[in-house]
Amino acid sequence: MAKFRITVEYDGTAYHGWQLQKSLPTVQGALEGALSRILTVPVRVHGAGRTDAGVHATGQVAHFSADWNKSLEALQKACNALLPPDVVVRNLVSAPEDFHARHSAQSKTYVYTILNGPLRCALNRHYTWHIPFSLDVDAMKHAAKLLEGTHDFAAFGSPTEGTPSTVRRILSAHWSNGNSSDTLQFTIIGTGFLRYMVRSLVGTLVPVGAGKIDPTAFGKILESCDRSQSGPTAPPHGLCLALVEY
Amino acid sequence: MAKFRITVEYDGTAYHGWQLQKSLPTVQGALEGALSRILTVPVRVHGAGRTDAGVHATGQVAHFSADWNKSLEALQKACNALLPPDVVVRNLVSAPEDFHARHSAQSKTYVYTILNGPLRCALNRHYTWHIPFSLDVDAMKHAAKLLEGTHDFAAFGSPTEGTPSTVRRILSAHWSNGNSSDTLQFTIIGTGFLRYMVRSLVGTLVPVGAGKIDPTAFGKILESCDRSQSGPTAPPHGLCLALVEY
Repeated sequence: MAKFRITVEYDGTAYHGWQLQKSLPTVQGALEGALSRILTVPVRVHGAGRTDAGVHATGQVAHFSADWNKSLEALQKACNALLPPDVVVRNLVSAPEDFHARHSAQSKTYVYTILNGPLRCALNRHYTWHIPFSLDVDAMKHAAKLLEGTHDFAAFGSPTEGTPSTVRRILSAHWSNGNSSDTLQFTIIGTGFLRYMVRSLVGTLVPVGAGKIDPTAFGKILESCDRSQSGPTAPPHGLCLALVEY
Repeated sequence: MAKFRITVEYDGTAYHGWQLQKSLPTVQGALEGALSRILTVPVRVHGAGRTDAGVHATGQVAHFSADWNKSLEALQKACNALLPPDVVVRNLVSAPEDFHARHSAQSKTYVYTILNGPLRCALNRHYTWHIPFSLDVDAMKHAAKLLEGTHDFAAFGSPTEGTPSTVRRILSAHWSNGNSSDTLQFTIIGTGFLRYMVRSLVGTLVPVGAGKIDPTAFGKILESCDRSQSGPTAPPHGLCLALVEY
C-alpha cells in the first residue's frame, strides 16, 4: 500500500461538514465514496482538520493509503470525474509512509470574508457574511494583533478530540480588503485551532469594529479563558480553510 | 402612479431566466411577487432585457409603476426583505414618465467568464465555464475586434420579439484576464443583442482560441449571416449582464 496526499477544494454549502456522518452528505464521505469506487475497496481518508457544516476550503489536505499502479495523474483524474461538482482534488502526490495530514501539519491558514455594506449580495451570498453597519477596521486590526503568539484560547472555542489543551499558537492574524472595496477579509495562520475558534474570534472582532467592545476589552476576553465572555459564533459560510502547510 | 427604476443583481442558477413563466421560478416573477405584496396590488416589472435560464446579472435594470408615498429607501428595503437571497435590488430611483427599461437603454454590457486550466473549480462553478485545453488568447482578441461596429449578426442569434432585424451595433468586444491568472473574461458592449448572441459568440470564439477556426474564418462566419456556420452556444452559467446604460 502506498500513501497519497491530496489538496481538496470544496463548496461546503451542501455538506454537513468535513467529517463522515451516517446518512448525511459530508466532504470526507464524498471523497471516500469516489476513491472506494476507483480502488474497488473501502478507503479511509484522513483530513488535516474538520471543517463545520457550510464552511468551505480551497486548500484542505488529506491522506489515504491505496494500491494503485497507474499514474498519479490518472488517479486524480478518476477522482475528479467521480466527485460531485462542488468538490475537486486540486493536487495529488505520493506521500512518505509517516505522513499524516493532521499530525504532520505545521500550520493552517483560514480566511473569513465579510461583505461590509448596506446591501446584501446575491452572487457571493454563500461565501461572505453580510454586515450592514459600518465597522472600524483599525480597531479590529488592533484587536487581531493581540491574538498573535501562544495563548490559552479557551474563551474562543472548545478542545478538539484527543487534545484537551486549549493553548494554541497563532503566527499571524490580520484584516485586509478583499477583491472589492466593501469586502473585508480576516486571515489567521496558526499551528492549530480549537473547534469554532475562527468563527468565535470573528464573532467577537465584529463587535470590536462596531464599537461595542474596545480592543483592550477584547484582550481581557482572551485572558479570561471564559467561553461565555466571547461574542456569538460568526456564521459558517464566510469561512474558508485556505492552506495547510507541512 | 409614479415610475421607478431598479438595478437588480441575481444569481440565475435557480431561475428559468428573467421572463415570467407560469409555475416556474423566474427573476421577473420573484420581483413582481415581492412588489405586489408590498404594494398590495398586482405589479408588472419591465426588464431591460431577458436573460436565459442560468444567466446571472449584476446590473439588470427594470421599471415599474406604483402608488407609493413613503421614501424610495423604504421601498428598496421592503423589496430586499421580501426577495429571496439570490435576488437583490441594488438601486431604486424615481424615473421620468417616459422612461422604459428596454426602449430607453443606450447600451448593455455583458461579461462572459471562462476558467481556463486543467482543473475544474468547486467554488466558482456556477459562474464560470471551464475550458480545460489551452487557448490562444491573442487569436480570440483578434477575432473579437471584428465584431466591433454595425453588422448583421444573423450567424450568432435569432431576432428578439418585435424587432425582426438582426443588425446590431457593437461598441466594444474584448478579452481580458479576470481576478486570477486562469480566468478569462469576454466583455462585450452593444446597443442591442440578438437572442443567444453573446453565448453563441463565445461558443465560436473558443474554437478560435483552440486553433480550430482562424480569426479570418471567424470573420467569414460573421459575414455569412448563416446560423449553421457558428459554433455551439456556450453554457449560460458563464454569462452575466453587468450593466445597462441610459
